[in-house]
Parts: sequence; structure tokens; C-alpha cells
Amino acid sequence: MDANSAAAAKSTIPHKDLANAIRALSMDAVEAANSGHPGMPMGMADVATVLFQRHLKFNAANPCWPDRDRFILSAGHGSMLMYSLLHLTGVPGVTLDELKRFRQWGSKTPGHPEFGHTPGVETTTGPLGQGIANSVGFALAERMLNARFGDDLVDHYTYVIAGDGCLMEGISHEAISLAGHLKLNKLIVLFDDNGISIDGSVSLSCSDDQLKRFEASGWSTARVDGHDPEAVSAAIAAAKKSSKPSLIACKTVIGFGAPKKAGTSATHGSPLGKEEVAGAREKLGWSHAPFEIPADIKSAWAGIGSRGAADMNAWSKRLDANSQKAEFERVMKGDLPANFAEVLGDLKSSIAKDAPKLATRQSSQLVLDTLVPAIPELIGGSADLTGSNNTKAKATKPVTAENYGGNYIYYGIREHGMAAAMNGMALHGGVIPFGGTFLVFTDYCRPAIRLSALMNQRVIYVMTHDSIGLGEDGPTHQPVEQLAALRAIPNLLVFRPCDTMETAECWALALTTKDRPSVLALTRQALPHLRADAANANHCARGAYVIRPTQKERKVTLMATGSEVAIAVEAQKILEEKGIGTAVVSMPSWELFEQQSAAYKKEVLGTGLKVAVEAAIGFGWERYIGTDGIFIGMKGFGASAPINDLYTNFGITPAAIVDAVTAKL
Amino acid sequence: MDANSAAAAKSTIPHKDLANAIRALSMDAVEAANSGHPGMPMGMADVATVLFQRHLKFNAANPCWPDRDRFILSAGHGSMLMYSLLHLTGVPGVTLDELKRFRQWGSKTPGHPEFGHTPGVETTTGPLGQGIANSVGFALAERMLNARFGDDLVDHYTYVIAGDGCLMEGISHEAISLAGHLKLNKLIVLFDDNGISIDGSVSLSCSDDQLKRFEASGWSTARVDGHDPEAVSAAIAAAKKSSKPSLIACKTVIGFGAPKKAGTSATHGSPLGKEEVAGAREKLGWSHAPFEIPADIKSAWAGIGSRGAADMNAWSKRLDANSQKAEFERVMKGDLPANFAEVLGDLKSSIAKDAPKLATRQSSQLVLDTLVPAIPELIGGSADLTGSNNTKAKATKPVTAENYGGNYIYYGIREHGMAAAMNGMALHGGVIPFGGTFLVFTDYCRPAIRLSALMNQRVIYVMTHDSIGLGEDGPTHQPVEQLAALRAIPNLLVFRPCDTMETAECWALALTTKDRPSVLALTRQALPHLRADAANANHCARGAYVIRPTQKERKVTLMATGSEVAIAVEAQKILEEKGIGTAVVSMPSWELFEQQSAAYKKEVLGTGLKVAVEAAIGFGWERYIGTDGIFIGMKGFGASAPINDLYTNFGITPAAIVDAVTAKL
Repeated sequence: MDANSAAAAKSTIPHKDLANAIRALSMDAVEAANSGHPGMPMGMADVATVLFQRHLKFNAANPCWPDRDRFILSAGHGSMLMYSLLHLTGVPGVTLDELKRFRQWGSKTPGHPEFGHTPGVETTTGPLGQGIANSVGFALAERMLNARFGDDLVDHYTYVIAGDGCLMEGISHEAISLAGHLKLNKLIVLFDDNGISIDGSVSLSCSDDQLKRFEASGWSTARVDGHDPEAVSAAIAAAKKSSKPSLIACKTVIGFGAPKKAGTSATHGSPLGKEEVAGAREKLGWSHAPFEIPADIKSAWAGIGSRGAADMNAWSKRLDANSQKAEFERVMKGDLPANFAEVLGDLKSSIAKDAPKLATRQSSQLVLDTLVPAIPELIGGSADLTGSNNTKAKATKPVTAENYGGNYIYYGIREHGMAAAMNGMALHGGVIPFGGTFLVFTDYCRPAIRLSALMNQRVIYVMTHDSIGLGEDGPTHQPVEQLAALRAIPNLLVFRPCDTMETAECWALALTTKDRPSVLALTRQALPHLRADAANANHCARGAYVIRPTQKERKVTLMATGSEVAIAVEAQKILEEKGIGTAVVSMPSWELFEQQSAAYKKEVLGTGLKVAVEAAIGFGWERYIGTDGIFIGMKGFGASAPINDLYTNFGITPAAIVDAVTAKL
Repeated sequence: MDANSAAAAKSTIPHKDLANAIRALSMDAVEAANSGHPGMPMGMADVATVLFQRHLKFNAANPCWPDRDRFILSAGHGSMLMYSLLHLTGVPGVTLDELKRFRQWGSKTPGHPEFGHTPGVETTTGPLGQGIANSVGFALAERMLNARFGDDLVDHYTYVIAGDGCLMEGISHEAISLAGHLKLNKLIVLFDDNGISIDGSVSLSCSDDQLKRFEASGWSTARVDGHDPEAVSAAIAAAKKSSKPSLIACKTVIGFGAPKKAGTSATHGSPLGKEEVAGAREKLGWSHAPFEIPADIKSAWAGIGSRGAADMNAWSKRLDANSQKAEFERVMKGDLPANFAEVLGDLKSSIAKDAPKLATRQSSQLVLDTLVPAIPELIGGSADLTGSNNTKAKATKPVTAENYGGNYIYYGIREHGMAAAMNGMALHGGVIPFGGTFLVFTDYCRPAIRLSALMNQRVIYVMTHDSIGLGEDGPTHQPVEQLAALRAIPNLLVFRPCDTMETAECWALALTTKDRPSVLALTRQALPHLRADAANANHCARGAYVIRPTQKERKVTLMATGSEVAIAVEAQKILEEKGIGTAVVSMPSWELFEQQSAAYKKEVLGTGLKVAVEAAIGFGWERYIGTDGIFIGMKGFGASAPINDLYTNFGITPAAIVDAVTAKL
């Protein structure tokens, strides 16, 4: 603890008043909004006060200082706890007026904390369990960057406040198991052990011994009275020295201070009501008007907020003196290496049209074999399908508890935890995470993919075995509706490249798009090389383009993605031979195509018969084929059989396309 | 153990030969298919043999006998273990020829076990963790039916084989936590503790102490050598007597018998190869040709398969003598009570058009208040949002570890576990499960919803707060893409009723459709009663219908679902006043509308300008509005604000509809 910290810790303002400031603001804001969750902020005010006053390394004036400790409110419904802290410590923009506009249109204080919306919010939380799973990514990114840049530049803790809901969610198991395995000892979870959930007592639905559970996954654990500041502080101090991640179960009273409702689910998700608020003021000894914070208390909180300024200045000096300064700043800004375009260009030039067929998952590996050595911040991984997802480039080394200096993570069979950890890594900054599983299992990580999109994070999902083309594993493993379901997520880029060239282009787009997540849908099966035109611009950047023009007057447009582009090209040959002018459009990304001009779209789609070919259900394709076009694809779930039997039996063949087109014309 | 069991247990065929029959069939079938997972069946052959020979209550000739023990292969990739067992014990239809056609088009032996496809398969597994989570539903259904019908009719165990993958998946946490809480002591999990996952040693990614973890959730645990039949049997015998659910960690060697590859991930998901298979034959002392089972061994296995015949006959006699026979048979067949139509009719008649506005979640509660007392097998629940989802009807009583006789389950904050448990309950039979959470959290349970659809199970998802209409909780809690994503799942019925009458009709459709799951998307906000025409047939059964015809010549059709139907009706009034003939179509279910005749569809959709109104993204609506229609709805994620501000700011209002229509015309 430096001098400032010590001063703040010894503030003449009693702990109780500091914590009550949080309680008062929280209940007042919820009351003003007539909506919200007062119980958690009131219950955890003591714990949060201790954390901010005595332990958290932060500087309110600069909430983005790279070496700050991260504070993650996994129990995001208790957002007023965070807003109160941001306001009281003096984070710019989180004014009292914003607190008064809690949960109103355009305020900085939405119902749940939103990254990118409110300064000081590290990650968007609310969907339970996500924050604690993000925190594993934060803590891992810290260790990886520490391995790369050293203690001088990277040395901070990740603190999490989580509730019963977070710990009941399945994703928490994936998160704590991975954190324990990787011995992320700078991760400290403060569990708001209030025994209450929305339906009533937690004992209605849960009998877990949480401490034992965390210990089983390799965590240090402690149990404290969450209203005893010294006990809380001692537990945090001990956790900071642990060689394992730490859980501190803080026994608290939800809605602490509310005379009648404290300790009950009535305080969880509803305003306390006038009478109860008045009673709480009395009980807490807080005689100030709504939203009024006495100057001395405000000043003490401001002192807490500036406690880390000296730390930050010292860090800045260390950064200036550090030989890796430019590289550190580059990766923290998220810029790619200066030679990225060159490396990519060389790669594209090396792609030969007559090379042996390659599955796009293998094309992806080929791309990674080139890019991973060139982009040290690119951190791969797979949810236990490394060899199938082809995510491990030649040059990668595993990240382990003994050595965080690697760049490949064995995430285990934890798709959801992987996705949420990748969100945390991307949010932390300094690394660009990509991770693989089968496309069908995007369902398992969908809540985290949604958050990648909502938070504008560059997280890259390498999703292989992207259709019935995976063959024998059958319908449980064959995605049919996943492409549609992913395309439906706002702000998500869904790429389905048709060959090696497109795979390289889509990887380039995923990497250069700093503010959107990407899904790369890749085949298990080998595909021909349809393009070897490296000199050209990135065709995939326009989302769709004519990959094979007609030699005649255009009567038919065959649109396809991924593995079905080659099938469409085969069909084209037959149709042209029959005298039917047919163009083939490759459509690797609907989202990028949607951004093009109306004129370009019209040019690509043509005016004749429109046919879409995709080994998935047709949901959504009417956007491009209209209500009178033809869709060649799946009508329901797949089946277990070798790939050729599947394509034939489900009628996704050149012959089926030709038959449908000729019947229609 | 009855006489038959004892005989089978004392079979003169050594255990080793029985187990090796499984090993040989498994490696031979995988070899023939040139695809599959031999390692797990070979590793778990001893455990499975002990279970089937000495403990499992089943009768191969009648794999659907209601009081059989359930056997669930959660590690579904080891499907050859199950197919070998079904074949060897003599389950009809699982012939040697089918084993030879493992993973081929149309065979009874797909890559992963599929319910409804192969006799004796209790649930579709493969997506990891689902089986163990289903098993909680199976075991719970058993206890609930036992409470209702007594030991004479319902008294059986649920056995699960699960692997490391199942236990690493987050859903396993939700499952074991719920099972422990509910003290489902007839649930016994045999953990294939082979230390190997696809990427290599489990130690690459996981350091959990699984026994301690299960104990933390209230389970009995044991650790045994999975190749020691006596130890395995003793552990199962002890587990059967436990007052808690039981985990038996069976230390096994994956690919047991393979001379070079045993104990390595090389045996996990690939054929062993000719040489290794030959070596395994030698090492195991199995000199028989591929797919050849010596008569004495086959006969011993047949004896195991018929071991439960006497048990079944005794049970049948007890059933015949039981006063509740007809009711038991009704619920096991899944038929609704005879007076269902009458009850529903009375309910519909009671709906008054001038009643106060009601949110459809409240309408749903009103329906449940009527139906739950009339349908004793209807089992409700919520993932800790009981008061918000309105899933607890007046007459319900909670299901607890002390009394399984209730009909409401506090699932806790475990959406995925809830959905998978509901699948298990539906598959067990005798109960009809419904469960609630917010619509946005269908993302959390999506893999299980997909399996409800794939398995044709009547599981009813009550998903409230179904749009930005939920207001202040903000974008993390506001579904925008979920309706599209759910509509994309084959075989799933997605209902979005617009008022109380439609809610009653949609509930009726969900309940009477025995072979499909349903999602009911319901509002948080109050809606007017647009219909009070109880005498009419179920309009929702046709998916969409003209709810408000035009008084003029029809120029415009406004299609809407749920809460936006009332908005469309308001817009209609204005447009009609302006002289623009406008019809309003309510479209509670796209899936049912798709099943209608082309003529009916055309009649409903009209020929003029088509406008869709839905407070969600427009993905997929081109199917009905074409490429030149108008979509009024969301373009991206929502925001935190009171409902009226949201609808106004996002432009989903009667005025916005009118403006768009007049601009277009």
C-alpha cells in the first residue's frame, strides 16, 4: 500500500458513512427510476467500500489506465453499486445527474452495466455468470501480457463480485474449473453470499457447498462476515498472496438497512418504496436528502478515487523507459503489426488454383501458420477439438499454469467458458483471441457470442464442421439452423468462405474489423480452389460477388456460400451447356453484403431467376431470392451417414440444382 | 435380485468374455464404418457388463416397459457401447446387420444414439452434458410418479454413463446441483474416468477433483477400478442404497485391449486400424472373426436380456390390479384428460373483451390457473423467475426433496439444466413439463431446446419479457434476435400470442401437439383484449389469420405478432380513416402457417403492400413481405429505458407504421 492508499485507508470518515453513501444513492436511484435492484448494492456496499478504499488499484480520473486492477460486477443487476462507486470516486461523466436518470433513455446509467457506454465499466454484465467467466479471460490476459512485457508494465488483479445466480449458472463451472487449472492467482471473486434469489431463499433451489466446490477446482477459499470491514480486508489481503485463484464468500444481508425488507427477496428487484426508504435512512443513520452526499463524505470518496494516481504516474514513467513501449502501446490499441498487409499478400500469392483440394478448416490452419508468427498477440485455442478445428498453428506453444508465455489455450470441453473468456481477453486488451469448436456448438456459447457483438469486441470464432458435410456424427453434430441463428445476431460478422483464398480474405476481415466479432464457418470436407487471384482486392470485403460470370445472357443467378459454391459452379457448367446463362455468386458474408450500395447489390443478384444453395435450412434466404426464387438446401435436421450419401439424399447436388432451375424456367 | 438375475449373474461365461463381446463389436463396427469412437466402449465394457448383468432392471424384448430402469449414455459418442448392449441382449430391431451398417444412411445405428430411431435408446446424446442433465429429469419424473402412483407401479433407477466431457460442460454443474438439492437418490452416474479427451490427457485442460465437486453438491461418491467387476458391482449396490444421488468414478483405460493405442486419445474418435484391431483381438484373447459372437456368449447375453422378464410380468399383474391403472396408462401414453376440450372451452368463454388490459404472461397464468388443476401431469417451474414468468398457478405445490408429490419445480438460476431436465421428464413419460425464463435466455438453453425438437418431445417453454417491451433492464435482457433464432430450429413451434384468447389457444396447441416442443413468447407489458370469440375454432391453429379485416378494398396487409398486433390495429384505424383499405393479420405461429394450403396463405397475406410489425429484428420476414414490403421493428440491440420511450425511439408505433405505408403508396 503506497502513501495515498494508506491515507485513504485512514480517512477520518468512518467506513459506515462511506458505505452508506453507496446504499443511499442506490436506493434513491432505484426509487427515482421506479425500477431496479436495490438489495445487492445495499448488501455489498461494505465489501465494495473496503475493496475500493484499501485494495483496488485504480485512478478514477483515468479509468482506462492499462495496468489498473479490473473490477467486474458479475451480478450486473446490482448496477447501482457500480454507478455509485464510479460517481463517488469521480470517474468523468458519471455525474449525479446521470445517477438521477438511472435506467432512462440515453443515460450513462442503464439497467445493467454496459461496456463502452459508461466509463469505468469493464464488461457488460447482467446475463448471469458471464462476468465471472469474462474475468477468467481478464486474469489470463494479464498473466499472458505479464509474461510478454514483464512486471513493470503488467501486474494487476482482477476482482469480481458475483452472486448466487452467477454461481448457479453452468458457465460458472467452466470458468472456475479453467481458472483453477491455470492457477490464475490474481483472480479474486467476492461472492455476495446473501442466501436470497428472486424466488425467495436460495435454499428453495440450491444446497451447494460453494467453498468446497471451488476448492475442488483448485481455488483458495475463505468465508467472512460481509459487513465486517476488517475481516473483508484481511481476506482480500490473504487472497492477494495466494498461489491460486480465490473465492471469498461474504455473508451479507440483502437490502442491508431496509427495516422490514432487509434479508428478503423483496429487496432484490424492486424499489423499496417510500416508507421503507425512509426507514432505511433512519436505521442506517443517514439523514441526508435523496441524492445528497455530504461534502466530507464526497471528499473522502474522491480521495479514494485518486488514491492510484501516484501508482499510475510511476507506471507511466516505467512505460516511457521501457524498450517495449511502442509494441505495448500497439497491442493495447489493438492495431495489427505494420507488415500485416504484406504478410497477407504473400500468403494470398502462394495459393495455387491447382493445389490439392483442401477443407476450409485446413485452409484456416494454413492461414494461421502464416499469421500467428506474424501477430504475437493472436491467441488461439479450442474447446477440446484442436485437431478437428485446425486452430493450432505450427508455431504455437500452449499456455500453462507454469508458463503463460504461450499462445495456445487448451480450453477443455467448455465452449461457453471459452467464448466468455475470449470476451474478457478482448476487453482486457493486448491480445486478440480466437477459439474453435464445431459450428453446431455455437449454440453452447451463444449467450457469450451475443455479448461479443453487443460489446463490439474483436473475438474470432473458428467454427468447423459447418454443415451435414461433417457426415457420420449425425444430426446432433450437424448444424442446419446455426448459420441463420448467427446471422440473426446484430453486429456479428458471419463468414463462410468457399476455398483457401476466401478463407484468407475472411481471416483478414475478421482481424482488421476491430469493433465486431466474427464467426468463421469452415468445412470438414475438402474443397477445390476456385480462386487464385491474389492480386485482386479482398473480394470477400463486399460480402458477395460474382465468382463465375455467365458466358451468355444471364437468366439465372446461383448464390451459394462455403462448400456449396463449388456445387453451384458444377451446376453452372451444365446449365450453360444447356444454353441457360447462369452466373454464380459467392456470398461469404451477408452482413458485409448488406452494407453495399443498392446498385452493387442489384448487379450481383441479377434480375433473372434467383437460386440459393446452402447446406443448411433456408430461413432468411428470401431476402435474396425473394418469394419466387428457389432454395436448394436442408428442410430439417440431418442424418448420420457418409457425406456423399447425405448430399445426395438431401438433394444438394449439381443435378438437383439443374433440375429445379429447368423445371422453373 | 430375483431368480433370473441371480442366474444371469452366475452365468458360466466368464465376465471377461461378455465384456470382450462389446469390445469386439465396437471396434469392428467402427472399423467397418471407417469412422467412430472405439475407445470409450472398449474402456467401459466391463462397467456396462456389470450394470446390465447384475443391476439394470430391463427386459430386452420390451424396451419400453414403463417401470424399467433407465440407462442413459451421456457420452453419446460411445454409441457402439449402447448398440452392442442392445444387440447382445436382444432388443428387437438392433440386428447384427444394423451393427455392420454403423453410421450408414438409414441404419438403426447412427453416429450418436438417437431417441425414436433405435429401440432402447432413452434419449438422444452426443452434445456433451445433455445426457447427465436429462437424467435429472428422468430421475425426478420417477420420483414424482412414484409419489402419485406408488411403489407398485413406479420404482426404478436411472443410470448414466458420463465422461470427462460431460463433466466439464457447464450444464453438468446445473444438473448435479439440482439433483443433489432434490436428493434424487435413485440417480447413479458411472463416470468413465479415463483421463483422456480429444486433445490428449485431461490434465491439459482440467484439474478438478470430481469426487469433491459432486460431494459439494450433495452426492455420494465412490472411486473404483473400472476393470474390476466385483468392485464396480459393489459400488453400484452401495449407490442403490444411498440417500443421495451417487457418482461412481470408474478408473478405466480408454481403448482397453488395444496393444499400442490403449490409454491414449488415438482411440477416442478414430478407427483403431487393421493392425491394432488384430493386436487387440490377441491381447483380449478374442479369436473370433469380425462381428462373430460365439453362441455360448450370445446366449449368456440373451439371458441377461431376458433377466427382467419375470419382473415385468409381476409388474404387469400389479398394474392390472391397481385402481389407478387407467389413469397411469393415460399419462404414460401422453393423452390429455378426457375433459380437456371442455375445460378449455369454458376458459375461452370466460374471456371478456372489455376486461382490463393484461400482459400475455398474466394471461398465461390465468390459463394455467385453470389447466393445472385439470391436468395433474402438468409440471411447472421457472429458472428463478417465478413471479415474472407467471408460471406458478394458484393450485400448485412445490416439488421438494421431502415431498415429490408437488407439481412446481424451483429450478434455480439454471436455464440450461431446466430445459434438459424437462427433456428427460418428457422422455420418461407420465408428466408434461413446462418451464419459464426470459425469452432472451432461450440462448442459455438453446442446445436443449434443439434436442427437444430433434427428439419430438412435448416440452413447453414459457418465455416471458419477449421484446424491448421489458423496458429498463436494457439490451442484455431484451430479446431482439431470439424469435428469428428459435423460428430457425426445425420442428419447434414458436408461439407469440397477442392477447388472452390467443394465449389460451396457443397453450391448447402446445399441449395437444404431442410430438413437438413449443415456445410461448409472452409479454411483460399489458395488452388489450383483441378477441372474445370463444365459440370460434382455435384461430391460432392455422398460424396466422385476419384478425381485423378491412372495411374497404384491401390495399395493405399489416402482419404482426404478440404485442405488436394491437399497435397494428391502431395503425389500421388511422389508415382506414385516410381511405387506405388495411387488413391486420395476427401471426402467432409461422410454423403452423407454413402448414396451410397455398390458397389460405394467399388469402391471409393479400396481394397489396405487405407490412410486418414485430418488436424484434426483421430477419426472416421477407418470407411474408417479400423483398419490396416494409418491416417495422428493430434494427439492432435495444436499450435501457421505460417501455414507451423504447417503442417511440425505435419507431415501433402506429404513427411510424402509417408514415411508412403512406410514403410507400
